[in-house]
Amino acid sequence: MAELLVVGTLALDNVKTPFGAVHDALGGSATYFAYAASFFTRVRLVAVVGRDFPQAHLDLLAGRGVDLGGVQLAEGPTFRWTGEYGYDLNEARTLDTQLGVLADFHPVFPDHFRRSPFVFLANVDPEIQLDLLRRIERPRLVALDTMNYWITGKREALRRVLAEADALLVNDAEARMLTEEPSLVKAVRTILGYGPRVVVVKRGEYGVLMAADGRFFFTPAFPLESVFDPTGAGDTFAGGFMGVLAHADRVDDETLRRAVVYGSVMASFAVEDFSLNRLTRLTEAEIEERFGAFREMMRLGH
Amino acid sequence: MAELLVVGTLALDNVKTPFGAVHDALGGSATYFAYAASFFTRVRLVAVVGRDFPQAHLDLLAGRGVDLGGVQLAEGPTFRWTGEYGYDLNEARTLDTQLGVLADFHPVFPDHFRRSPFVFLANVDPEIQLDLLRRIERPRLVALDTMNYWITGKREALRRVLAEADALLVNDAEARMLTEEPSLVKAVRTILGYGPRVVVVKRGEYGVLMAADGRFFFTPAFPLESVFDPTGAGDTFAGGFMGVLAHADRVDDETLRRAVVYGSVMASFAVEDFSLNRLTRLTEAEIEERFGAFREMMRLGH
Repeated sequence: MAELLVVGTLALDNVKTPFGAVHDALGGSATYFAYAASFFTRVRLVAVVGRDFPQAHLDLLAGRGVDLGGVQLAEGPTFRWTGEYGYDLNEARTLDTQLGVLADFHPVFPDHFRRSPFVFLANVDPEIQLDLLRRIERPRLVALDTMNYWITGKREALRRVLAEADALLVNDAEARMLTEEPSLVKAVRTILGYGPRVVVVKRGEYGVLMAADGRFFFTPAFPLESVFDPTGAGDTFAGGFMGVLAHADRVDDETLRRAVVYGSVMASFAVEDFSLNRLTRLTEAEIEERFGAFREMMRLGH
Repeated sequence: MAELLVVGTLALDNVKTPFGAVHDALGGSATYFAYAASFFTRVRLVAVVGRDFPQAHLDLLAGRGVDLGGVQLAEGPTFRWTGEYGYDLNEARTLDTQLGVLADFHPVFPDHFRRSPFVFLANVDPEIQLDLLRRIERPRLVALDTMNYWITGKREALRRVLAEADALLVNDAEARMLTEEPSLVKAVRTILGYGPRVVVVKRGEYGVLMAADGRFFFTPAFPLESVFDPTGAGDTFAGGFMGVLAHADRVDDETLRRAVVYGSVMASFAVEDFSLNRLTRLTEAEIEERFGAFREMMRLGH
């Protein structure tokens, strides 16, 4: 089992879906990621919060064994995201973003974080991703997520992160936007030319596509009757994915495939309730049971 | 190996895609279906054409061993479809439909067609589907395709066909429209309540979902760099799917899964060129090679 470091956001979310709404709920890319990954490996968290961030949220992560040595407490309000979803739950509509303490975030972390074999750069400014990467001893695997905002606003910095990364996790619209290539297969091949040897495309209700070392692998989404709140699904996927790789301390073809399916398993639970509510009730037995269900849905022969 | 009967259309298509255009090209649901199925089993065709339908097209099907005993030659023009695709090749825009001899189509076929263990009711008026079904000895498996036009215009007749069918093949928009259910998983469960024990949902670039006897099975689409012309992909899928079932003369879980993947293999070839151009160049070795590629893309463990 190897250590897994994540840099990203801890946030307070206001979310509205056709099924309800929450106010100031625990959210943020690093939150979902760290919680999901904690089922598989030892996680180190680098992030910033304001004094308004409830201690109970930090206790929740600490209770999962997450090393909070890289969580800074800054003057000012915590990052807040307000969004809503219509009946087509595939895409969030962002209503408001309050950066708060995130506007002036410079990652600070204890010295032992520098030796983290697995690193995940969650969706933050690519300049911050680069800054962190420069201060880490060369890890075994660096993966990153990003979003349309950085693709259009900080394309050059993003390309520099990509040149140093081993894996990119994006959704299909982002893959097309990053490469300006309408064919997803061509977009993936183009991204592989930017540096990463692994590209994972998250396609919401259509599952996940991975291209790794010239091979494609596909996983369906779990056929849920209703998705309650998709917020954090991608970060939860990433937590499961990276958690499995760090646990195995290997990045071969078989482990990558298992990692994609475990990521999908974790994401399928996350969307069953608001915030981290379903994840905090989740058991290892439930994870293994759903992994078995995925295996069965994809099985071609005996 | 069991006999497979199909009723559907033989057509002349005018198709425009971003990559080119064809005029009066061989098309029609039964054409794609029969040609694809002919790689796997003995096919019997029930359809109607006008005197303008080139003999060479019928010779092409006869050359694949397709029994044309149910193809009527009628006075009037052959059914013609004119459509185009934009860069999003997932959906055709129908520009014109000339029913011609199809407007007054009453299936006529030789007596030996009545004992056909596998029957596919391709996308035609559900009244015609019902009429044909009434004149066939109870087959082992009846499957049907349909489209939005019949779902809105002949819902009651369609429900009567569904009550007698074992399998429905539709795309995801049609599944939602038929059930008025935005959740695809709920839509599929609702359709299972209408009669069929197997529902196959074709999702274009996202592959295929099958629900059979309470189990879900997923297959990705083949990751093509470019789709040339998607016309006939669904019918070609159906031909491969039903061809494999009829060849095995079994409808168990393992055979259904193989059938879905072979259907996807056949469809992935069909879209590589206009009309049946790619299918007419296709070899059995190419089919087996691509089946192996699908197996590899879906493989979770050894």
